[in-house]
Amino acid sequence: MRALCVVGTGLIGGSLLRAARAAGRECWGVAASDGTASAARADGFDVNTDLDAALRRAAEADALVLVAVPLPAVEGVLKRVDAVAPTVRMTDAVSVKVAVADAVATFAPRARYVGGHPMAGTAESGWAAGDGELFRGAAWVVIADDGADLDVWKDVAELAWACGSRVVPAAADEHDLAVARISHLPHLLAAVLATVGAGEPDDDLALALSASSFADGTRVAGTRPELTLAMCEGNRPALLAAVDEALGRLGVMRGALASTGGLKATVESGYLARQRWASTREPLALEVSLDGPDALAELRELGRRGDVVGGWK
Amino acid sequence: MRALCVVGTGLIGGSLLRAARAAGRECWGVAASDGTASAARADGFDVNTDLDAALRRAAEADALVLVAVPLPAVEGVLKRVDAVAPTVRMTDAVSVKVAVADAVATFAPRARYVGGHPMAGTAESGWAAGDGELFRGAAWVVIADDGADLDVWKDVAELAWACGSRVVPAAADEHDLAVARISHLPHLLAAVLATVGAGEPDDDLALALSASSFADGTRVAGTRPELTLAMCEGNRPALLAAVDEALGRLGVMRGALASTGGLKATVESGYLARQRWASTREPLALEVSLDGPDALAELRELGRRGDVVGGWK
Repeated sequence: MRALCVVGTGLIGGSLLRAARAAGRECWGVAASDGTASAARADGFDVNTDLDAALRRAAEADALVLVAVPLPAVEGVLKRVDAVAPTVRMTDAVSVKVAVADAVATFAPRARYVGGHPMAGTAESGWAAGDGELFRGAAWVVIADDGADLDVWKDVAELAWACGSRVVPAAADEHDLAVARISHLPHLLAAVLATVGAGEPDDDLALALSASSFADGTRVAGTRPELTLAMCEGNRPALLAAVDEALGRLGVMRGALASTGGLKATVESGYLARQRWASTREPLALEVSLDGPDALAELRELGRRGDVVGGWK
Repeated sequence: MRALCVVGTGLIGGSLLRAARAAGRECWGVAASDGTASAARADGFDVNTDLDAALRRAAEADALVLVAVPLPAVEGVLKRVDAVAPTVRMTDAVSVKVAVADAVATFAPRARYVGGHPMAGTAESGWAAGDGELFRGAAWVVIADDGADLDVWKDVAELAWACGSRVVPAAADEHDLAVARISHLPHLLAAVLATVGAGEPDDDLALALSASSFADGTRVAGTRPELTLAMCEGNRPALLAAVDEALGRLGVMRGALASTGGLKATVESGYLARQRWASTREPLALEVSLDGPDALAELRELGRRGDVVGGWK
């Protein structure tokens, strides 16, 4: 089992260290502050604040480096990678993938990098909120763009399995568009629905009459605003495309409602889409071949079919 | 306890008969078909298909007539009311209130009508789906427009309490706008979100990556389309206003995302609105005075504050 060096020990990095240790892996981490490092050491983890030393140790041990810092902090980490461990095996847990791939190409171009996105989280943050079970049952996207190092791809997939996740291969740009549609857009529509539903500050009639359709449709509007903003604003180009599609469909619906009064097209399309969603809840875990020249294209195709990787020949 | 004549024995009418009988009331019903009437009689209820006879009996007993038929069938019932029981006490359970009030003014102008909307339902329909507990804990809107007969208003409120509901007074037009915002708009946004999230038919990646934000935001898109259509299309003018407000807010958000990238205004507004929603979950039940000249205005004001009627002096 490959050793793991986790850079960043917040909710995601801290949970990864716990999950990796529980799976029997050698692992160490780099915290942003002495306080966090002390808290992690008090919990028995090998964590300090010396990034260069942790990266050198990763290079010597041929370990996998996992970057689990917020997007704005990625550039600084990559510059240290290029300086002290330039060809290290590397992945990340940032929730957008094109921006990180671009940063790697610019600041750590020799790193053996394969992007990742374990799709799990809570409303909490920080080392203390970490949970070794956080990733169990979650989708863990492993980026399969052309040119990806298949050796490192396997490292990331094996780590995801060790954490109890499902391995979903995808292209970086397709990942960003997908999460815009199914994660970021829901947060924005929930915010707008909550605002429209609440109406004027001195009139609570509508809220008093609201039942489960409104409660469910606005649930994620209750997420702490800074978390929603960081997630959505970091995926701006893809999110803009998703918002434009939603606006276009709402505009067509508005026109139909105003002219003929008919909502059939909108409602039936939504119903069929929800049926399709239900049919994706039990993905097939398939064994793949990672040897041929089309291995990465086949991985991406598997992800588009809604299947997951169960192993390889 | 005032006797109850329920016209229409589908999910709502059938549940009302069960709840009224459980509360010890004399009650009888009118079914649209012999089959339904037989089924209701087999369950021990006094139900047949003779509308005129049921209405005459209501006039003789000074009973409350509750119209629980779909909106397109209301006109026909009102014409019979005007013909055989023109000044009867009357309410209804239709989910829009301005259209029914207009129909009453046209077709049964002498009826002592006070509109109502018990806000409960399931995905089922028909007599067999009825449930005497359907209305327990639900909001039951009782219309308090100027000119309403306060005697009948009390009849409707007492029936709502007998069924376990909360009594929420409102103006008919404010009711229609409120349900457009908190019930009909959520269904349309869920449909659009489901469609955008599902994307192209040959690409399930986004659906495969979806988690609770998408599942919750699209739940009501899984409602049977004919139910959603009947509900939304019946409230067209008010729904158009709610859709336009949502479109306006989404458009402003789209502009901010494209220019500065900032989503703070949208997300913080949604967060505050969801907090306001949470604060309305335990309404105050207040005792009101129904004697003064402003009694109806005060009832409407109570509903706007998010409170409910707990009794009267």
